[in-house]
Amino acid sequence: VLVSELGEFGLIELLARELDATYPPSPRARPTPGFIVPLGDDALVRSRRVGALVWTTDTLVAGVHFLPDKTDWASTGWKALAVNLSDIAAMGAAPDLALVTLMLPEDASVDDVLSLYRGLKECAAAFGVTVGGGDIVRAPTFGITVALAGWADESRSGSARVMVRSAARKGDVVAVSGTLGNSAGGLRLLHGNGRLESEAGQELRAAHERPQPRVALGRDAVRAGVRCAIDVSDGLVQDLSHVARASGAGIHIDFGRVPVSEALRSCFASDAAALALSGGEDYELVLIAPKPVVQAVIQSSLTAVTAIGEVTDNDEPRVSVTDEAGRQISVPAGGWDHFRN
Amino acid sequence: VLVSELGEFGLIELLARELDATYPPSPRARPTPGFIVPLGDDALVRSRRVGALVWTTDTLVAGVHFLPDKTDWASTGWKALAVNLSDIAAMGAAPDLALVTLMLPEDASVDDVLSLYRGLKECAAAFGVTVGGGDIVRAPTFGITVALAGWADESRSGSARVMVRSAARKGDVVAVSGTLGNSAGGLRLLHGNGRLESEAGQELRAAHERPQPRVALGRDAVRAGVRCAIDVSDGLVQDLSHVARASGAGIHIDFGRVPVSEALRSCFASDAAALALSGGEDYELVLIAPKPVVQAVIQSSLTAVTAIGEVTDNDEPRVSVTDEAGRQISVPAGGWDHFRN
Repeated sequence: VLVSELGEFGLIELLARELDATYPPSPRARPTPGFIVPLGDDALVRSRRVGALVWTTDTLVAGVHFLPDKTDWASTGWKALAVNLSDIAAMGAAPDLALVTLMLPEDASVDDVLSLYRGLKECAAAFGVTVGGGDIVRAPTFGITVALAGWADESRSGSARVMVRSAARKGDVVAVSGTLGNSAGGLRLLHGNGRLESEAGQELRAAHERPQPRVALGRDAVRAGVRCAIDVSDGLVQDLSHVARASGAGIHIDFGRVPVSEALRSCFASDAAALALSGGEDYELVLIAPKPVVQAVIQSSLTAVTAIGEVTDNDEPRVSVTDEAGRQISVPAGGWDHFRN
Repeated sequence: VLVSELGEFGLIELLARELDATYPPSPRARPTPGFIVPLGDDALVRSRRVGALVWTTDTLVAGVHFLPDKTDWASTGWKALAVNLSDIAAMGAAPDLALVTLMLPEDASVDDVLSLYRGLKECAAAFGVTVGGGDIVRAPTFGITVALAGWADESRSGSARVMVRSAARKGDVVAVSGTLGNSAGGLRLLHGNGRLESEAGQELRAAHERPQPRVALGRDAVRAGVRCAIDVSDGLVQDLSHVARASGAGIHIDFGRVPVSEALRSCFASDAAALALSGGEDYELVLIAPKPVVQAVIQSSLTAVTAIGEVTDNDEPRVSVTDEAGRQISVPAGGWDHFRN
C-alpha cells in the first residue's frame, strides 16, 4: 500500500495506534500517557517538569544520511531518535519527549513508514522517551526530523547542571566511552568495501545502524561532577577541536590508549587508527574533568570508560595526537561537512 | 555564493550573526539571550519556566507548501514560524523558543538562505520568540522545519489552562477572528488566476504569504475562560469537523455571519463563500465557549472576533452550514490532505 492511497489521516491513524494513542480524538479519547491532551490537538501539552529544558533536533535524509537500499527502515527509525538522544546525553540531561516529522514521497510504502516508526518506538522505549506526535508532510525525498526535549538537574540555587563544550580546564583528563571507529567501519562495509557477513562485520554494521546513545553514562557523569562533554558524531579529533576552541585550551590524545574494538581491527587492520580518530557517528561520549572525577565515573559506570588524554597548557586551542613512541600522528583536517563532503 | 561553496560551518556562522549569537563558541562567547549555554553546544538549555510545556512542529517544503519562484524567501521564513505560532495560539499558550532545521540543496544560494532566516527572525521578534538554533542538512529539495515550544498557564492545583478540541459543549457559541478565505484567494492569485497587482490582490497575497498568528487573542481567550479552540489551517469546515468529532457534538454555522473581506469579495465575487468555508491557511482562531465568555472576549480583544454559529444538541458530530434563508449549504467533503490532493 502506498502512502498516497492511504492518505494523510489514514496514515496518522496507523501511526497513532503504534503509540497506543487514540486518533482521531473522540470524547472517549485518553491522552497518551505523560500528556495532558490527546493526540491530534494543535500542540502537545506536557505537565510541568522540574529543571531546565534541554532541547535538540536532528534530521536524516534518504541518500544523504541513510541508504534505504542497504539499511532496513526500522534501523533508520532507531537511529533518527538515537542521534538526538546522544546530544541530550552529552549535556547530562534526562531525555523526555520527542516530536517526529516525516517527509514522505507520494510513492512511499506504508509498510516502510510503519517499520521506521516501530524502530523509532523501540528506541524510545529503550530510553524512556515519550513520542508525542509530530507532523507528516509530502516531500520529494524521504526524510525524518526528530526534535527531542529533556530536562537538566538544577542546583539548589536554580542553575542548570549540564556538561558543556567550554568547560575544559588545564590538567583535566579526557576520557571516552565504548570503542571508536566501529560506525565508520560499518559504513564502509555497507558500501561494499569488506566482508559484511562476518561476525565482526555484523558488529560494525550494528554500530553504524543502531547506535547506542550513552544516556545513562551522561547522567552518571553530570552527577559525579563532570562539567565538560561532547558526543562523538563527526569524528573524535574534529569533535575535540570544538571543545578546544570553545574552552580556549589545548587537548592531547595518546593514541595507544584510544579504545578500538577487535572487530574493527579484524576488518580494517591498517585503517583502524584513522577510522577511530576521524570516523564519525560513534555516538560515544567524551568526558573531560579533573582526574578524581573521571576516575569515579570509570569505577561506577556500567559503560566502559577509558582515559585517553588530557587538557594541556597549550594556549593554542588545538588537538594533538601522539603514538606510543611519542610521535605526532597527523589527522586529516576537517571531518564531516554537510555541504563540502 | 552557493551554500556548497561556503560550507556548513561558514553558513552557521552567518546565521548565528543574524541571531546576535557568537559562533563558533569561544571562551569569550556569551549565551544567546534567554539561554544558559552559548550556541554551538550539543543542545540548547533554557532556564526553568513556570507552567506546562506546549510543543508543536510544522514543515514547509519547496514546491509543496511554497513556490520559490512566486514568493520571496523572507516571507517563507516568516510563514515557517507563523504557522507554528498559530498552533501555540490555538492552545492559549505563550510561545517561547524555536528550533529551526534547514534542508538545503547543495546549489542553494546563501543569499536566499539569509533572506529566509531574516524573515523568520522578523516573525520571531514580532511575537517574542527566541530562535535557539537548530540543524542544517543537505537535502535534494529546500525545506524548513520549525519546532516551537511555549508555556501554558497553570491553575493553583497545577493543571494546565489550555484550549483543546474536545471541549465544545451544547449551547456554546462558535466565534472566529479576522476574516476567512483571504489566504486561499491569495494562493489563487499567485497561480495566475486573477489580478495580483490590485490593492485587493496585494491584501490577499499578504494573507497567504505573511499570515498573522493570533497569539495575543489566544492568551486573552484562555484567560477569559475559553477552553475550546482550533486554528483555521485546513479550512473552516474541515477544522470544525475535527472539533465536532473530538467533542462528540454537532456544530452549526450561519454562513451570513462568516466574516469575509471586501478584498476577497472584489477579487472572487462568486467563489468568496467557498473560499471562506473551505480555503485553508487563514491561521485565524475559532473560539468555542459559553456565550458570556465569548462576549467578554469580543469586547476586550484588540482583534476582531465574530460569532458565527453554535454547538448543537445534534448527537452526530458533524458540521452544518446554512445560508440567510436557512437552506443547507453543502461544503465539499475533505479539505487539505498532504497525500491525496
